[in-house]
Amino acid sequence: MRRIYLDNAATTPLDECVLDAMMPYLTSQFGNPSSIYSYGRESRLAIENARKSVAKILNAHPAEIFFTSGGTESSNTAINASVRDLGCKHIISSPVEHHATLHTVEHLHKTGEAALSYVKLLPDGHVDLADLEKLLSESTDKCLVTLMHANNEIGNMLNIHAVGELCKKYDAIFHSDTVQTVGHFPFDLRNTYVHFITGAGHKFHGPKGVGILYVNENIKITPFVHGGSQERNMRAGTENLYGIVGFAKALEQATANYEKDSAYIKSLKLYMMEQLQQHLGDVSFNGDVLGCSLYTVLNASFPKTDKSEMLLFSLDINNICASGGSACTSGADAGSHVIRSIANDPDRVAVRFSFSKYNTKEEIDEVVEKLKTLI
Amino acid sequence: MRRIYLDNAATTPLDECVLDAMMPYLTSQFGNPSSIYSYGRESRLAIENARKSVAKILNAHPAEIFFTSGGTESSNTAINASVRDLGCKHIISSPVEHHATLHTVEHLHKTGEAALSYVKLLPDGHVDLADLEKLLSESTDKCLVTLMHANNEIGNMLNIHAVGELCKKYDAIFHSDTVQTVGHFPFDLRNTYVHFITGAGHKFHGPKGVGILYVNENIKITPFVHGGSQERNMRAGTENLYGIVGFAKALEQATANYEKDSAYIKSLKLYMMEQLQQHLGDVSFNGDVLGCSLYTVLNASFPKTDKSEMLLFSLDINNICASGGSACTSGADAGSHVIRSIANDPDRVAVRFSFSKYNTKEEIDEVVEKLKTLI
Repeated sequence: MRRIYLDNAATTPLDECVLDAMMPYLTSQFGNPSSIYSYGRESRLAIENARKSVAKILNAHPAEIFFTSGGTESSNTAINASVRDLGCKHIISSPVEHHATLHTVEHLHKTGEAALSYVKLLPDGHVDLADLEKLLSESTDKCLVTLMHANNEIGNMLNIHAVGELCKKYDAIFHSDTVQTVGHFPFDLRNTYVHFITGAGHKFHGPKGVGILYVNENIKITPFVHGGSQERNMRAGTENLYGIVGFAKALEQATANYEKDSAYIKSLKLYMMEQLQQHLGDVSFNGDVLGCSLYTVLNASFPKTDKSEMLLFSLDINNICASGGSACTSGADAGSHVIRSIANDPDRVAVRFSFSKYNTKEEIDEVVEKLKTLI
Repeated sequence: MRRIYLDNAATTPLDECVLDAMMPYLTSQFGNPSSIYSYGRESRLAIENARKSVAKILNAHPAEIFFTSGGTESSNTAINASVRDLGCKHIISSPVEHHATLHTVEHLHKTGEAALSYVKLLPDGHVDLADLEKLLSESTDKCLVTLMHANNEIGNMLNIHAVGELCKKYDAIFHSDTVQTVGHFPFDLRNTYVHFITGAGHKFHGPKGVGILYVNENIKITPFVHGGSQERNMRAGTENLYGIVGFAKALEQATANYEKDSAYIKSLKLYMMEQLQQHLGDVSFNGDVLGCSLYTVLNASFPKTDKSEMLLFSLDINNICASGGSACTSGADAGSHVIRSIANDPDRVAVRFSFSKYNTKEEIDEVVEKLKTLI
């Protein structure tokens, strides 16, 4: 039975051209990028070219781009550095952040290294900017604001420029978890007031196990992972050479096809929305679905019944991949902390469908057809 | 011109069968291991099988094996956890550790989280166990002993059991950086008094960007990288699926061929030693070269001349890859902190040759021939 993969916010398949770009580094070109002989320098060159390419696409300086093992390590690094190196003794975050942010800020709060406040959310799940300003203006300590650019479960997008301006006004450090938007939206970091952003290759058809951390050139931090002098003494450990090459290639590919791919994927999201409304009667959508939202994510809400409670399992039996929320929490949680924070209706069941350029309308027709029998 | 790669302690080429094992996970099998549908569970299964295989080879319990982004992250995790979770307020290390250890313990010393002592070295570069016992017996605080199993530059191997017994006697936590020995020697962790060991895939023909941390089941630590519930809540971040599969396959391969490969590689080391002595007159060797030493590493010392000072560059021009020390420090240092610690002779030049199963006697003949003209 053919599999229909509608969980692209969890992870995406490697683009074929990305794997092609990685292959030389998985075979003949294996030199350690830190070795001083030419064979090592060729690996170094591949990494520095990847860095330049990523920087150019994000409109940043190459010296502002650091390669890490993924989005989670990047967010850990940014948040820890803000508290330990940049003097932020008050963290302002939101209850709908990814656990990579939430568990890191909670840890720093628990150890007493920083106070912690959560900004209020509006009914549609967006951050209440008036409340953010209130928190910033009332803080007696230097603040770190850590708010995600796009929510991975409901798709809501933050006005990163408006938040940046508030951070500027109150001299706060601003970290944004951009794992769902790097590779999906254009960035102009030179003209954005933000100190740290993060990216993860596997969210846009690049490899797993590699990410980036952007660190604005005006701030100076110390390493999170100590050791060798890799990444200009900022991130120790032999570089994930093929991962880094793959990250850059995937970002280049995503950027080259952005207009086409984003329009196509958005049409899939809207089509599924429309089809669900047409065929499933009592369906609603979590988040600001038609407003400021990811074109890749549709979080649908169905009435809770004996059948719909089993929906994810039933979809799985039918070889349809969709999720109840973040994959990173699925092993542990009884439900989604995001859905609980914005729409805590015990009589509804939430399912996240997330799309990529590889999905088709035919797949959506099939899923909607199947949902009619499953709800 | 054919390249002769004699820097296998820096990194090794991927074994073909390792890449073969990784390929399905780089192509069709891309599901997020944390996703609850069957397609995700297949990825999870691959990771758990890898963990079981690694654990079995090291004679450990699968619950004691955690996958990380590499040896550096593993050592950072172990050392930080010892201080922050296990109450070690005194770190005992050595001046010849890898920077992944040295820079981490120096950082914890600088922040005031732990006192720091360096154990004395014997003239052959081995740790002075009497001095270690003296440090342990005189310590008023709980100690972390962090000593590498084998030195990456001179090849000296620690008597891990003797150190373990001392740590047991003085109730110390014992971390050993085993990056140069995992995949090169048998381990029997159930019968070794050690709390943490580390491994890096790329040191034994596995992939870069993946490592392991063994955490003895009798101790309980908190995560170094916070976030999702991956690795049983111990190491957050979407798993490097292909890296993990590759790590296990490389370790299986290394273990299956251990007798044959280690005997062969040792014969290469001895052959090169003999040839250098025969053809180069004034050559000596750093470390306990014929004693308790890696069969993969030969650190040769030549008289310093105008020509020999340029030796690494001259070798490079002749397409021979060898190094002055650790690759991880080559970008920054003026020389090797290891060589400085054990044999600080300004009139000698040290070169590390390190071997793998892919090297041949013919290559060594060629290198020795070339060295005759270069020194």
